[in-house]
Amino acid sequence: MKGLFVTFEGGDGAGKSSMLKEMAAELRSEGYPVMETREPGGIRIAEKIREVILNPDHTEMDARTEALLYAAARRQHLVEKVLPALEKGTIVLCDRFVDSSLAYQGAARGLGMDEVYQINEFAIEDCMPDLTLLFDIKPEDGLDRIAQNKGREQNRLDLEHLAFHKKVHKAYEELAARSKDRIQVIDAGRSFDEVKKDASRILRASLPS
Amino acid sequence: MKGLFVTFEGGDGAGKSSMLKEMAAELRSEGYPVMETREPGGIRIAEKIREVILNPDHTEMDARTEALLYAAARRQHLVEKVLPALEKGTIVLCDRFVDSSLAYQGAARGLGMDEVYQINEFAIEDCMPDLTLLFDIKPEDGLDRIAQNKGREQNRLDLEHLAFHKKVHKAYEELAARSKDRIQVIDAGRSFDEVKKDASRILRASLPS
Repeated sequence: MKGLFVTFEGGDGAGKSSMLKEMAAELRSEGYPVMETREPGGIRIAEKIREVILNPDHTEMDARTEALLYAAARRQHLVEKVLPALEKGTIVLCDRFVDSSLAYQGAARGLGMDEVYQINEFAIEDCMPDLTLLFDIKPEDGLDRIAQNKGREQNRLDLEHLAFHKKVHKAYEELAARSKDRIQVIDAGRSFDEVKKDASRILRASLPS
Repeated sequence: MKGLFVTFEGGDGAGKSSMLKEMAAELRSEGYPVMETREPGGIRIAEKIREVILNPDHTEMDARTEALLYAAARRQHLVEKVLPALEKGTIVLCDRFVDSSLAYQGAARGLGMDEVYQINEFAIEDCMPDLTLLFDIKPEDGLDRIAQNKGREQNRLDLEHLAFHKKVHKAYEELAARSKDRIQVIDAGRSFDEVKKDASRILRASLPS
């Protein structure tokens, strides 16, 4: 593969999606070919699979069924959209990928990180990201930011979710410790400009020269 | 689990589906609680997943995406239909299960039996069948039977498929050798009555006394 596959990860409220847009704009302004994406990414089969997952009527959905469906959508998005772009030498910036499944479904929902990795390994074969930017924020602060974005105080529901988000946070820490070469942790608790500067510096160090 | 989980496996034309009906009728006539099923088995989410798999427009479907979708449908069918029946002490007769995925997708389509097992292991956890009846027929004879059922001679397409069905056959042989305790091979090249007698004998030996 000639391009560069970069994933953006982090808990809710860490600001990774905004930072992805920033990085895409910055690289594009310098003439790099960039593709921004996130699953299911407009891929027909992946969109159909997401419809099954997200249908609010499907309350009987088993957690393992859901994890297999996410892996299936991931596979199709990878094969149809990410790999062809990488083949052409594009820098692919992807909002969430395997690590999100491991943190959210594997750790926080209790399916087990190794077990969820088992099906994702099947889904992606050896196409792991070249680089993962992990935007690290304290779960309390992340939830606080989300509440502020919605123009309200943290409510009871947010606080109930705190235990869940703490599990996600801990899982990301574990993943970063396991994959030091691939996962670069960025302190996302700082100002937008500081975070952006770090993200840009790390990303540039991985660019093909 | 108090019931008995029996799967019926074999290449096309081996007669396993007819034999499943026979066995169900026989056991029912003697008062056993029996459930006949096959995936997706009327389970809403599994049916939706099958629609995605079988949609003839989806020519871009990747083989691994398809395998993950089959595993997802299997999981939901198992959790919603098979396990509750087994809990109640029912004898569940299921037309095709994990071994079919291993033989067809793993071996014949070339994804690898171990790899396809990896995602099925996630899907079924430790709910392997108590007993698997493998109806063994030479691929040539199986295809011949199918052609006869359709009231025609074998055509060019059937013969082109022979190589595929030979791979399926070989895979089932391998699986039987690996799981001698679970998989009982029945020579399905004989008369209906002879096959039925064998199937009945083996099934009865596994019934809770």
